Amino acid sequence: MPERNFFRKAISAMTGYTPGEQPKIADLIKLNTNENPYPPSPDIVEKLRAFPVEKLRRYPDPTASKLRALIAEEWGAQVDNVICGNGSDDILTMIFRAFTDVDLPMAMLFPSYSLYRELAAMQNAQVILISLAGKDFALPDDLLAQAEKANLLMLTRPNAPTGTSFPLETVENICRKFNGIVAIDEAYADFASDNAVSLALKYDNVIVLRTFSKSYSLAGLRLGYAIAAPKIIEGLMKLKDSYNVDMLTQMIGEIAFADQKYMRENCRKVVAERIRLTAALKKIGFYVVPSEANFLFVMPPDGDGRKAFEYLRGNAIVVRYFAGEVTGKYLRITVGLPEENDRLIAALENFYK
Amino acid sequence: MPERNFFRKAISAMTGYTPGEQPKIADLIKLNTNENPYPPSPDIVEKLRAFPVEKLRRYPDPTASKLRALIAEEWGAQVDNVICGNGSDDILTMIFRAFTDVDLPMAMLFPSYSLYRELAAMQNAQVILISLAGKDFALPDDLLAQAEKANLLMLTRPNAPTGTSFPLETVENICRKFNGIVAIDEAYADFASDNAVSLALKYDNVIVLRTFSKSYSLAGLRLGYAIAAPKIIEGLMKLKDSYNVDMLTQMIGEIAFADQKYMRENCRKVVAERIRLTAALKKIGFYVVPSEANFLFVMPPDGDGRKAFEYLRGNAIVVRYFAGEVTGKYLRITVGLPEENDRLIAALENFYK
Repeated sequence: MPERNFFRKAISAMTGYTPGEQPKIADLIKLNTNENPYPPSPDIVEKLRAFPVEKLRRYPDPTASKLRALIAEEWGAQVDNVICGNGSDDILTMIFRAFTDVDLPMAMLFPSYSLYRELAAMQNAQVILISLAGKDFALPDDLLAQAEKANLLMLTRPNAPTGTSFPLETVENICRKFNGIVAIDEAYADFASDNAVSLALKYDNVIVLRTFSKSYSLAGLRLGYAIAAPKIIEGLMKLKDSYNVDMLTQMIGEIAFADQKYMRENCRKVVAERIRLTAALKKIGFYVVPSEANFLFVMPPDGDGRKAFEYLRGNAIVVRYFAGEVTGKYLRITVGLPEENDRLIAALENFYK
Repeated sequence: MPERNFFRKAISAMTGYTPGEQPKIADLIKLNTNENPYPPSPDIVEKLRAFPVEKLRRYPDPTASKLRALIAEEWGAQVDNVICGNGSDDILTMIFRAFTDVDLPMAMLFPSYSLYRELAAMQNAQVILISLAGKDFALPDDLLAQAEKANLLMLTRPNAPTGTSFPLETVENICRKFNGIVAIDEAYADFASDNAVSLALKYDNVIVLRTFSKSYSLAGLRLGYAIAAPKIIEGLMKLKDSYNVDMLTQMIGEIAFADQKYMRENCRKVVAERIRLTAALKKIGFYVVPSEANFLFVMPPDGDGRKAFEYLRGNAIVVRYFAGEVTGKYLRITVGLPEENDRLIAALENFYK
């Protein structure tokens, strides 16, 4: 029988998004997927131990009401301004299914999170790539003109993999003038000096996405949320799986979110190391793109990202390398524990001496 | 400013799927969402207590390899025959995004799980409803002719809300002849006398879906899986969120799945109660549709489903009622603990005496 293919053409044509590897090497220093080097809130341990397992036979709260109330309170918003997801990837999926289609294009920055392209492809939606300008990957002045035909504009702030932020006034100006949805992906905003949540509460076309994976040290849990006008949240709710956030994730998320002080202290430590690592890499001769995230996007002295990546891997230090004309000159390095950063610096000093 | 709407037309037109309520009434007997009356495997408690919470700062295994290996072994399949999801709803979403589109219709039974219609609507896909025949909701003889234009045929076996199964030879014949994907939703198959997993391993166009929500008593956890040819699994993998099943869910799922004996014993107890409840309801004058699931679809003596639903609710017993010309004559009742079923029987005896 000849091989049959029932997939939609768009799916057959896709390669799929490849997440950063989770290598199983002993004594490895893992600085490739922007995980937090510190554990999640210590309050979780006891509550998880006390969790009555028999409750798992029941469905969870389909809309995570208690967690959404906590989040709303923290941001001076209402519960109907908030939606939770199985990771912010889940919310990205809802957003793309809500606002993109064969006649509704999506605009995004380049370089940025490549998953957006995959999500647009699944919707048969055209992708408009807006190249960031110059050595520090700034927003181009004609961004609005380039994005004009799009129904969805993805702004990643701080951006990944570049780590750069964009002036809040510029972003607000874009939100005000763009005739479509502006989704601001703030996965790394807790490591930055400001954020755009106020814009989501001010404009009817702005969504801000957040994740528990980075600043709350809960990548293993899968929890994210978005803040937007109630009309937008209501529409996204129709698209989510009925019970998209499980019972344990809701409980652990509530505990972690209530412990803002612990999260902020961890972010402060990561930012301090980011500053130290930036100085050390510059001293070796790296170009370091100014970062507001928990990682650095850096160009080695010889402009060969792949060579540096492979050298480090050979020394049991895994960072992230993105092939490509622009990104291939760089490495993306997650800020680790002080001792991990020390070993990284020592290895690179040795390689480029 | 006039109210703006950026949603795709299909989303604006949708009402969204409404899951069964999770009422907060003291002493309530909850027989409305087909949850298992018994707790999940006792092996989970100790392992959850011993779980090192600091591991949650890392991303989980993106493809749940260990759990998939366990599942494959149990079914005599290979790891590349299996995909895991955040509940089987997550896998349904992947299937609809993979195989339906504006020019790729979906066919489904009626009555059946109404979520399928919502998922098709999100894809701009035409829905072909195939009415089940007669008092016992059998597959119609001309099913293949009715489904001919569809690229995806949803077969729910045992079906919900009717509880009925369909002869395996009939289903195999459909799989052999249908020129598209046959997705067999087996959420309730562990309570039935047979299942269709062998068909997923035999045909290149068959997907069997399973869930941990019912037979494994883990509705709160969100875990499901599908079995199909490697080509199909490979395509669905492109559509899933990068890390769709979290670390705790993978761990708990592995423990629960390894304890097949405990799960089977719980199913045996539920089936025994299903048989007892069937006899008791018939004695009161109900018509009971033959069930192979953990619930019964029953018509009260006066053919008024809503009246019975409201009476029971007034007596702190919540069952499920689906309005509609066909379904409105019935109630769907989850099989509960023996003492819960006793209270249900006593209440109905009193109402219809």
